[in-house]
Amino acid sequence: MSLNPQYENIGKEFVTQYYAMFDDPLQRVAVANLYNADSSFMSFEGVQIQGAVKIAEKLQGLTFQKINRILTAVDSQPMFDGGVLISVLGRLQCDDDPPHPFSHVFVLKPMGTSFYCAHDIFRLGIHNTV
Amino acid sequence: MSLNPQYENIGKEFVTQYYAMFDDPLQRVAVANLYNADSSFMSFEGVQIQGAVKIAEKLQGLTFQKINRILTAVDSQPMFDGGVLISVLGRLQCDDDPPHPFSHVFVLKPMGTSFYCAHDIFRLGIHNTV
Repeated sequence: MSLNPQYENIGKEFVTQYYAMFDDPLQRVAVANLYNADSSFMSFEGVQIQGAVKIAEKLQGLTFQKINRILTAVDSQPMFDGGVLISVLGRLQCDDDPPHPFSHVFVLKPMGTSFYCAHDIFRLGIHNTV
Repeated sequence: MSLNPQYENIGKEFVTQYYAMFDDPLQRVAVANLYNADSSFMSFEGVQIQGAVKIAEKLQGLTFQKINRILTAVDSQPMFDGGVLISVLGRLQCDDDPPHPFSHVFVLKPMGTSFYCAHDIFRLGIHNTV
């Protein structure tokens, strides 16, 4: 494996596809198909889960219907196993909540001619000091 | 290689050590020693560079003397090559500038009994729409 020169397009296309599915309540649970059944990690607001089944449960528990989302930065880097590291910053507004800044990190791993999401770290808004 | 069960402590200790060096103008350039000479990537406000020499040049060009930094979230995940993915959110204030939120992503790779920083993505503040 080596660096994929298309890392920037891969990152942008993944993010576009991911949020198109996530932000549609009818497609949201299908986002779990982008993760590995057993190995993929998701940290959602500091709570870590592993595997597509638990990730699907988490997605199913998100009950908001409407999301307004603005992306303010998408930074991608190629990884030496052929994967892509992606850092997304933006703002989102769920239903009638006030808008919040968010941070979202993905690590994509190559699988055949495509990619799956091996790591996902999501944080919303401004947090207390750790 | 396999998952390192100490990933959470490794992430927190790395971040503590990294910012202690970075925030001290006398030690800042030595932060470049935490990266691989050739392969490590740094994206700083959307500009990507590679290798410890260019990273040292970038660090040398940062002229602020005093940094007040507050970390609001440090999320770490173990990686299957024994590395650690870290996402940091916080606020920082340089010299007499106003405080800004920041996002910082690191990928640590194992090297002997220690780690080096293979990937680094830094963004300050609120950005324009991409």
